[in-house]
Amino acid sequence: MARCLLLEKSNVKEFLDSFDTILTDCDGVLWEGAADYPIPGVPETIQQLKKMGKRVFYVSNNSTKTRAEYVVKCQKLQYDTTEEEVVGSAYATAQYVKHTLGYKGKVYIIGSSGIAGEFDAAGIPHFGVGEDGWNGRGLRDLLDIKIDPEVKCVVVGFDLHFNYVKLFTAQQYLSDPECLFIATNTDSALPAGGGGILPGTGAIVSAVEFSTGRQATVCGKPHNPLGDILVQQHGINPKRTIMIGDRLDTDMALAHNCGMRGLLVLTGFTKLEDARRLTASNSIAHQKQIPHYYLPSLVDLGKLITECGLV
Amino acid sequence: MARCLLLEKSNVKEFLDSFDTILTDCDGVLWEGAADYPIPGVPETIQQLKKMGKRVFYVSNNSTKTRAEYVVKCQKLQYDTTEEEVVGSAYATAQYVKHTLGYKGKVYIIGSSGIAGEFDAAGIPHFGVGEDGWNGRGLRDLLDIKIDPEVKCVVVGFDLHFNYVKLFTAQQYLSDPECLFIATNTDSALPAGGGGILPGTGAIVSAVEFSTGRQATVCGKPHNPLGDILVQQHGINPKRTIMIGDRLDTDMALAHNCGMRGLLVLTGFTKLEDARRLTASNSIAHQKQIPHYYLPSLVDLGKLITECGLV
Repeated sequence: MARCLLLEKSNVKEFLDSFDTILTDCDGVLWEGAADYPIPGVPETIQQLKKMGKRVFYVSNNSTKTRAEYVVKCQKLQYDTTEEEVVGSAYATAQYVKHTLGYKGKVYIIGSSGIAGEFDAAGIPHFGVGEDGWNGRGLRDLLDIKIDPEVKCVVVGFDLHFNYVKLFTAQQYLSDPECLFIATNTDSALPAGGGGILPGTGAIVSAVEFSTGRQATVCGKPHNPLGDILVQQHGINPKRTIMIGDRLDTDMALAHNCGMRGLLVLTGFTKLEDARRLTASNSIAHQKQIPHYYLPSLVDLGKLITECGLV
Repeated sequence: MARCLLLEKSNVKEFLDSFDTILTDCDGVLWEGAADYPIPGVPETIQQLKKMGKRVFYVSNNSTKTRAEYVVKCQKLQYDTTEEEVVGSAYATAQYVKHTLGYKGKVYIIGSSGIAGEFDAAGIPHFGVGEDGWNGRGLRDLLDIKIDPEVKCVVVGFDLHFNYVKLFTAQQYLSDPECLFIATNTDSALPAGGGGILPGTGAIVSAVEFSTGRQATVCGKPHNPLGDILVQQHGINPKRTIMIGDRLDTDMALAHNCGMRGLLVLTGFTKLEDARRLTASNSIAHQKQIPHYYLPSLVDLGKLITECGLV
């Protein structure tokens, strides 16, 4: 069982020897919210880990960016990254639909250009991204919206243009029980910078689920599809992988769900008391969110590496 | 315990003597979906019941119409109705906010002109109905939306113009734990005529609940506020009241929640097997949806009244 151990001089070498792949969450670990600077010292820590031969993947539930756009953002924030290293929920979703489900038909997307870009890259035809283009005025006009018989998959992600017309359209496709229903993630909030919090993808998914009586297969953290993609497409070994994150319910739960270990950092959403509370709980759901290790900040791992002369 | 008894010659007099007030659902009892004709014979049955001295209230979860608009619809469908007899969820919500909660401030509404009309009639200032009028383009522009400090109440009902901007706005108000959060109803679907089904208010409420982590107080069936309004504003006695409806989870549950009895008719959503299944269940939630009586159609009550010479 995970015990939420503080990483320190006495156990850091054993810890570092136990993995060769790192999955790291971005917001709350590498930078804060919509800030355009990194958490100080963390870019250097990532460099140290890479020098030690660790493979690094940047894993985010944010579906608004393609991998290419993520690379631009990472590099602006001093993280030297390649597309291969980025696994956002938009990418994971397109890969899951294509490779895991083997779906080759058309997709109706509630989502952003990030999702559109990843489906384009995967060669899967799609529509729905952007404004809805509906010209009707009343409820009955909705019934005139043409439903494309080739669509047997609905994907729901973050969409600034989400509205009732899109909700209705998704419901029409999903009234066919054969139609696949996939969500990029179910986060309740999206940080907007300056401390602002926006409703997250989960709110949109929740509306579609409620109106259809169906439950989406979720690709992002903490759900297995994201981990499966890393195993199948990137050849990682979960037993030799550490997941670094600032959230218990997504990052640490992903580690447990995929048979990895989890390192919680306290630079983001979670306080140490939150994690401690889980270790005292008998609930299996809670136990599956307990970090194996924790650190105040990822920069502390860099300091331990230097102090112990490990790189 | 309710036992889902068929009303027939042997028990109809006792049944009719047991109440002096009737609450009747509309869609599925008086007419079907968006049809513009009544279920044959039912207008005459309602007339018979009125002649016997029964008070009739038309009770609907549909929040898109004011009471005045409902009267027009009822009369078009051969139900001779007054405003006093109509209790829609928009009306119940405005009354609940005004009388039960005693709230006199400004209300932010996600909803339709039906809700706006009932809040106008109640003299409660409000805004939000209609298109959002937002001119921003990107996520960060949302943070420029001005939040009115006088708003301490958010009401969510059916809204064809529901979109992400409205979701964000509601979330902003509801981030204040003192802000009241009220929903007209939580139906998953709205009939659109021609067999068409639209996503119901519940989908919209669900999105707001998910993004705020809060739960709305629901005014419509099967929740108590609607019953409380009928007791407080219209002086009904629940013990002498029968609720007629076609749904177990709203109409029959309202009867149980408010201490009335329920008569299920099979002209709408529910099949007799569905009700029978509940009578075999040990779940308290299921038992609280069991009809006390049932009939194939409300017109059968009229036939029994005539056959037994009761009017």
